[in-house]
Amino acid sequence: MSNEKEIPYKIYLEESEMPKQWYNVRADMKNKPAPLLNPATKQPMSAADLAPVFCDELIKQELDDTTPFFDIPEEIQHYYKTYRPSPLMRAYHLEKALGTPAKIYYKFEGNNTSGSHKLNSALAQAYYAKQQGLKGVTTETGAGQWGTALSMACSFFGLDCKVYMVKVSYEQKPFRREVMRTYGASVTPSPSMETEVGRKILAEHPGTTGSLGCAISEAVEKATTTEGYRYVLGSVLNQVLLHQSVIGLESKIALDKYGIKPDIIIGCAGGGSNLGGLISPFMGEKLRGEADYRIIAVEPASCPSFTRGKFAYDFCDTGMVCPLAKMYTLGSGFIPAPNHAGGLRYHGMSTTLSQLYHDGYMEATSVKQTDVFEAAEQFARTEGILPAPESSHAIRVAIDEALKCKETGEEKTILFGLTGTGYFDMFAYEKFHDGKMSDYIPTDEELAESISKLPEVE
Amino acid sequence: MSNEKEIPYKIYLEESEMPKQWYNVRADMKNKPAPLLNPATKQPMSAADLAPVFCDELIKQELDDTTPFFDIPEEIQHYYKTYRPSPLMRAYHLEKALGTPAKIYYKFEGNNTSGSHKLNSALAQAYYAKQQGLKGVTTETGAGQWGTALSMACSFFGLDCKVYMVKVSYEQKPFRREVMRTYGASVTPSPSMETEVGRKILAEHPGTTGSLGCAISEAVEKATTTEGYRYVLGSVLNQVLLHQSVIGLESKIALDKYGIKPDIIIGCAGGGSNLGGLISPFMGEKLRGEADYRIIAVEPASCPSFTRGKFAYDFCDTGMVCPLAKMYTLGSGFIPAPNHAGGLRYHGMSTTLSQLYHDGYMEATSVKQTDVFEAAEQFARTEGILPAPESSHAIRVAIDEALKCKETGEEKTILFGLTGTGYFDMFAYEKFHDGKMSDYIPTDEELAESISKLPEVE
Repeated sequence: MSNEKEIPYKIYLEESEMPKQWYNVRADMKNKPAPLLNPATKQPMSAADLAPVFCDELIKQELDDTTPFFDIPEEIQHYYKTYRPSPLMRAYHLEKALGTPAKIYYKFEGNNTSGSHKLNSALAQAYYAKQQGLKGVTTETGAGQWGTALSMACSFFGLDCKVYMVKVSYEQKPFRREVMRTYGASVTPSPSMETEVGRKILAEHPGTTGSLGCAISEAVEKATTTEGYRYVLGSVLNQVLLHQSVIGLESKIALDKYGIKPDIIIGCAGGGSNLGGLISPFMGEKLRGEADYRIIAVEPASCPSFTRGKFAYDFCDTGMVCPLAKMYTLGSGFIPAPNHAGGLRYHGMSTTLSQLYHDGYMEATSVKQTDVFEAAEQFARTEGILPAPESSHAIRVAIDEALKCKETGEEKTILFGLTGTGYFDMFAYEKFHDGKMSDYIPTDEELAESISKLPEVE
Repeated sequence: MSNEKEIPYKIYLEESEMPKQWYNVRADMKNKPAPLLNPATKQPMSAADLAPVFCDELIKQELDDTTPFFDIPEEIQHYYKTYRPSPLMRAYHLEKALGTPAKIYYKFEGNNTSGSHKLNSALAQAYYAKQQGLKGVTTETGAGQWGTALSMACSFFGLDCKVYMVKVSYEQKPFRREVMRTYGASVTPSPSMETEVGRKILAEHPGTTGSLGCAISEAVEKATTTEGYRYVLGSVLNQVLLHQSVIGLESKIALDKYGIKPDIIIGCAGGGSNLGGLISPFMGEKLRGEADYRIIAVEPASCPSFTRGKFAYDFCDTGMVCPLAKMYTLGSGFIPAPNHAGGLRYHGMSTTLSQLYHDGYMEATSVKQTDVFEAAEQFARTEGILPAPESSHAIRVAIDEALKCKETGEEKTILFGLTGTGYFDMFAYEKFHDGKMSDYIPTDEELAESISKLPEVE
C-alpha cells in the first residue's frame, strides 16, 4: 500500500484536480429506484406533473436514471472553488488517542458559513432557478442548515429566498435566523398567516409551535401560487444526491493520489444527502464489480428508518401533499422523540439509498444519542473540530470500528463523512454536559402503529 | 507581474511549504519597543520578576528583541497542520461586485473551532506550559475567542485550563461557554468567590456583572497562588505577536508563489495580535529597506488607541496590577462605549506596534460601527464567509481602498486579514438588521480625562 509517512494531515486538491462533473449513481444500478408516484392517481410523476413545483433542469436531473455524468456549470464551479475542495483529513490524533492500528480519514464539509455540506446542492439549485429566469425560490428549514445554505446561494445569484422556519426553531435559534437575514433571505415562522394552509392550521391550533411537515406545505403553496417562484428541497431527492456526489468524488481523487483504498465507508443518514454523496463513486465501483467496500449508514436509534422501517411507498411529507416515494420508512405520521440531530429526524430515506440497501449493497446501524455525544466530545478533544450532532453519528461508528481493529490488530482503512460543525447546537452539548440528555427509542408497538398507516399502492 | 488567469480563488500551501520558524520583527527594529516596567519600582521587568506569572520559555520569547527566528517545535507544527495553512483567498466575487480594478486578497483565519487566529498562540503557550511540567494554566476571556482557543490547546496537551469569563458574557454567551466545557475547561463567571480579589469586588459591588480587568486580576491571582499553574494571555504581548507571525509568513509564501506583491496591507487592531502577526514579514522587509508597503491599522471609532491615544507608559490592565507598558493608550481607566467587536475594546496596544506606528512605519484609521457592519454584510453576500465584527473593520477599509482604485483606475493589490467568523456574534448582526446599532464616539473631553490619569514614569 502507500507509504504512510508521506500522508499529510490534510489531503488537499488543486483547483485543476477538482471534479468538473457530478456522478449519477443510478446510471450504474441494475435495479433502479422506483419512480415517484402522483398521490392521487398512483401513476409515475412526469416532468409536466413536477413543473409547477420544481425548476425544469432539476426535474430532468431528478428523472434521469441512465446518464452517469452531468457537467457542473462553470459558474457553480467558481463558487465551489471559494470553499472547496473540502479537506480530507487523516485523524492522526484520534488514532493515537484510541491506540488503534486502523487508519481513519474524514471528509470535512463544515468549512463554509452554512456549516455543512448543504451548500453543495443549494448552489446548484439556485443556479438553475436563476438560469430559468425565476424571481425566487421557497423552502422550509428546521434546524436551519439548509435554509442558511440556500440563503447564501440565492444572495450569490441575486435570487429572492423565502424560508419557512418551524416556529419553535425560529424562536429558539435566533442566530440561525440572523445568518439567513444577513444573506438577504426573508424568514417567516411557520405556521404563518401568509398561506392558506398556515391560516388553517393556526385557526385549528392557535398555540402550535409548528412542524417541518407544515413548513413544507407552506413553502410548496407559496411557490406554486407566486409568479416566478419554485420550491427547492435540501435532501431525499435524486437531484440532491447528484450534486452531493462532489463530496465522494473529491474524496476518491484525494485518496487515489496516495494510493489509499478505504475498507469501510461510514456516513450518517437522515434523508440521505450526505451519505449518498459521500459513497457515490465508491458505490459505482461496487455496482460495476470493480471494487468492494463495506458501506455503513448510521442513523439515530430514535428514528431508525433503515434498521426498523419498511421498504414501501409512502408520503415524503407529513402533510401528504407531496409525491409518494418507495423507500425505507417509519410512516409519514411517525414523530421521532426529541433528538438533537435535527437533520436526521426524517421518517423516510432517499429512494436510491433505499434500493441499494434493499439489494444488499450497504449496511445500516443505529446508535443512541448519549453514545453519539461521547464520541463527539472525544473527537473535539483530539481532532479539534467541534462536530455537528448529525456528523457525530458517523464518528461514533468510526470509533467503534477502529476499536474493533485494536482488538483484532487489523490495520483497516476507515473513511467517514464529517458533514458539519456544531456551533449552532450548543444547547444540545449543554444538555449532554449536564447529564440531561435522553435516549428514548421507539417501541415495536409505536413503529408498527405508524407503519400500519402507509398508503396502499399496488 | 503575474498572469492573473492562473491565480486560484484559494492559494494553498503544501505541508512542506509551511513555515517552520516564527519571525520576531523586533530583531529588525532600530528603535526597540520600550521594556515592561515593574509598577512598584518603575524598573524594567526581569525574567525573574515575570517567572511567578508566566512560563519560562515564553518569558524568554517576551524579552528577546534580537533573535530574528524561533523554531516552531514539532509538536506545535503537527497541530498547526490540522487547521493550517489557512487559506489565502482572492476576493474575485467582491471585486466584481465593487467594480474595482483593485486585486483584493484576504488571509482567512476562521477555519478552526475557536473561530479565529487566537489558536495559533494558544497552541504555543499550552505546549510550553506542558514542557515546563505545569499542571495547568489560567486566563480570562471576554467575548470568548481566546478562552475557546486556549481550551482546545489545553485539551490537546492534557493540561488543566481555568477560564475566568466576564459574568455578563458567561450569561449572555452560553454557547461559547459550552464550547469551552466540551474541551474540558473549567469556566467560572467573574467576579467569583474563588479569589480574594473576586470576593472583595463582590462585597463592594454585589450586583456587578464583571469586567475584563477584574477577570484578569482573578486569573493572575489564581495562577500565582496555585501550585503548578501559570497565567497566559492572548494578545498585546510580544510572545503573542511572535506566534501570530505564522499568519504573515504563510501569506507571504503564498503570494510569492505567484509573484504577487501587495501595495496595501490592512488589519484590525485591538491589542495587536492579528495585525502584528499579519504584517510581520512585510514589516521586516520594510525595516530592512528591501521593500515598501502601505500598512494600515484599523480600529473602532469607539476605542481609538492609535488615532486619538497618547504614546506613554500605562497599566496593561484596569486593575493596575500588571506591568507598565509603553504604548498608545487611552488610559487604563477608559471604558469604551458598548461595541460589538469585543476583541477590539482594549485601551492600549502592543508595544511593538506602538513603536512602529510612532516611527512612521504604519498608518492607522478608525471606523464607525454601522459602516463596519455594512461592509460585513456586503462581504458575506459576495464572498460567502460571515465575518467577525473585529475582522470586518479591516474589510471596511479594504473596500474603501478598492473603491478609491475604482475612481483613479489604479490596479492596486490589497491584502487584508480576515481574523475570524461571526457565528457567535449574531446578536450584533440582529441589532444591525433592526437598525438599533449605536455609533457612539468618545468626546475629546472624555479622552483627555482618562489620558490625564496615566501613571508618572521618568
